[in-house]
Amino acid sequence: MKVGIIGIGHSKFGRRDDVTVQELAYEPFVEALNDSGIQRQDINATIIGGSPVYMTQRSISGPVTEYLGLNPQPVWLTEAACSSSAVALRTAYALIKAGMHEIVLVLGVQKMLENPTSEILKIMGRSGDVQWEAPYGTTFANYYAMYATSHMAKYGTTSEQLAAVAVKNHHYGALNPLAMFQKEITIQKALESRIIASPLHLFDCCANADGSAALIVANEEKAKQFSDTPIWVSGLGAATAPFSLLTRPELSTLSSAVEASRIAYTQAKVEPSNIDVAEVHDCFTIAEIMAYEDLGFTERGKGGKFAEEGETYVGGTIPVNVDGGLKAKGHPVGATGCSQVYGIVKQLRGEAGKSQVDGAEIGLTHNVGGHGQYCVVHLFTR
Amino acid sequence: MKVGIIGIGHSKFGRRDDVTVQELAYEPFVEALNDSGIQRQDINATIIGGSPVYMTQRSISGPVTEYLGLNPQPVWLTEAACSSSAVALRTAYALIKAGMHEIVLVLGVQKMLENPTSEILKIMGRSGDVQWEAPYGTTFANYYAMYATSHMAKYGTTSEQLAAVAVKNHHYGALNPLAMFQKEITIQKALESRIIASPLHLFDCCANADGSAALIVANEEKAKQFSDTPIWVSGLGAATAPFSLLTRPELSTLSSAVEASRIAYTQAKVEPSNIDVAEVHDCFTIAEIMAYEDLGFTERGKGGKFAEEGETYVGGTIPVNVDGGLKAKGHPVGATGCSQVYGIVKQLRGEAGKSQVDGAEIGLTHNVGGHGQYCVVHLFTR
Repeated sequence: MKVGIIGIGHSKFGRRDDVTVQELAYEPFVEALNDSGIQRQDINATIIGGSPVYMTQRSISGPVTEYLGLNPQPVWLTEAACSSSAVALRTAYALIKAGMHEIVLVLGVQKMLENPTSEILKIMGRSGDVQWEAPYGTTFANYYAMYATSHMAKYGTTSEQLAAVAVKNHHYGALNPLAMFQKEITIQKALESRIIASPLHLFDCCANADGSAALIVANEEKAKQFSDTPIWVSGLGAATAPFSLLTRPELSTLSSAVEASRIAYTQAKVEPSNIDVAEVHDCFTIAEIMAYEDLGFTERGKGGKFAEEGETYVGGTIPVNVDGGLKAKGHPVGATGCSQVYGIVKQLRGEAGKSQVDGAEIGLTHNVGGHGQYCVVHLFTR
Repeated sequence: MKVGIIGIGHSKFGRRDDVTVQELAYEPFVEALNDSGIQRQDINATIIGGSPVYMTQRSISGPVTEYLGLNPQPVWLTEAACSSSAVALRTAYALIKAGMHEIVLVLGVQKMLENPTSEILKIMGRSGDVQWEAPYGTTFANYYAMYATSHMAKYGTTSEQLAAVAVKNHHYGALNPLAMFQKEITIQKALESRIIASPLHLFDCCANADGSAALIVANEEKAKQFSDTPIWVSGLGAATAPFSLLTRPELSTLSSAVEASRIAYTQAKVEPSNIDVAEVHDCFTIAEIMAYEDLGFTERGKGGKFAEEGETYVGGTIPVNVDGGLKAKGHPVGATGCSQVYGIVKQLRGEAGKSQVDGAEIGLTHNVGGHGQYCVVHLFTR
């Protein structure tokens, strides 16, 4: 039995002081409902991806479910840091495949900007090791700065190559009305921006954001009943890497991404070269370059060159983050996994407008949690 | 294909300043591993039930997985307030039933006492409605005080009947070396204890705690391979009730519990009268009385009398919380769901010692999240 996505919705990402978390969840929910053609009473359960620690309202599943009119159906939240809503989709897939539910709503919803930046920095840092690493200053920019340093030292990756990722993603962000940032930038502007954690400049970093995205997931029968263009989940990989940097043999790769993609490719019986379009977790520009290599899109060590040569633009070897990525869309941590899937579903339906990859049939999402201790890779087909 | 529990472990509940969250997770993990006879490399995935908002270490799945030696297997956390680890078991069941994994570790782990009581009160209160209710003082004791007031007004339930629940649960807690409190109390002592939120006295309330419990869950083939006494999950119900008290037609019942148990009974093809032993969510004594009624153990409105007449002691109509319940064990919110299952597995295996219900064949767990917006009911058979 196949599992398909039959409805999608996506809020505007950015500063959303205009809405409560319930209202923020409602926006993509209604869009996904209308997109799917189902009624809310057709939904058997809801899985919410989100990181509860940033929000004044705790245990958001209760208020969100009531606000969406989904009582008495069950709901719970899944959390794996920045990959929280990718594991929500994985959970929904399991519930449907197990025959426990027919149609499940997957909702990534996150408010972060209720907190001042200094607070977000600390809350996020506490997803790293609070005992042995945080006391030495390991905010998230610092983790990825170490990865960049390692990648530069080992492979000669340059700041210009990192900037090329930012330029591409801002280029596509400018085409995405839901993105937080809709301005093109230049290599020069990126390189001249201030250092956040050396060697990472401001434009190497994605921004904290509020946002939400929704997916309506159905079993094969219901998917065919309600949709002419269901997008099938064809491969699911999830893996972990050691949490402590000390125990990682290598800082220029995420072993969780290598393993998660291996599992997903095996299940879907595809090779990296078969992927038509991908959404990867570019929380920092170096993360996208590492993803190119970890996912097998290019050879180990060649990720910087791959970016620089434009291979991941539409028309290149493999278009990546052509919706703007975390970099331009903003990164509401619990919503990002669903936002990535939204982008891929649009592509596989042929509804991606100016960013459309012609004839895209196989898509991939790569959602990293924390500093790589979690990685979830999904494959999708038309 | 059936899904069974083949290994269980349980830490000492209470103040556990002696361990980090990783170390706290390790205790029941090793016990469950030894109990099951599997090796750690046989575990395909881990689902952690826990409420991240109480702990200094955020996103605990990463550090716990590394500490337990379970990389690179996937892990994520499930959250539904106090029913977080019941939904973890539900998730594991789905993953196994879907054929995605063969053996899954379910771990309920929670540290709360890192925070002063005043902070816990506030954090927990924020699982209620922070916009419309919390500003008016709805801590958790207050929610349940309103339920008690309603139950008393409608059915004539008395403070003595509430106290009878506390006396029973402390009686069994005194027999459970893992319980936070191991002292018998009297009706008089309970009634003389100070008012926390009228009509609830101190002894009507469970205590915040640190603690952990682990379950090793396997598909039918692996369960039979590794265990002579697998305990099968025979029914799973989960449901929600409206979040806002304003939208609930009735405060003396939890509609989520009624609905979740209905689903579980239907799946397992049993009636309430078939249940040999139950663990119910007695966060407050009134909650246990409501559970008797919501689960169909006694008639609506007769819960107080049912407690007073000793019907839920071993030897009574249906023994409930004969491991001490949340009331005497303590309530580490994310661990409670697994702790309840631990108690039922012990009973169905005939390993419950002085609290053993002779010949118990069918067991039930009832795990409520928040002030009843979530409820998860599981049924188990030998």
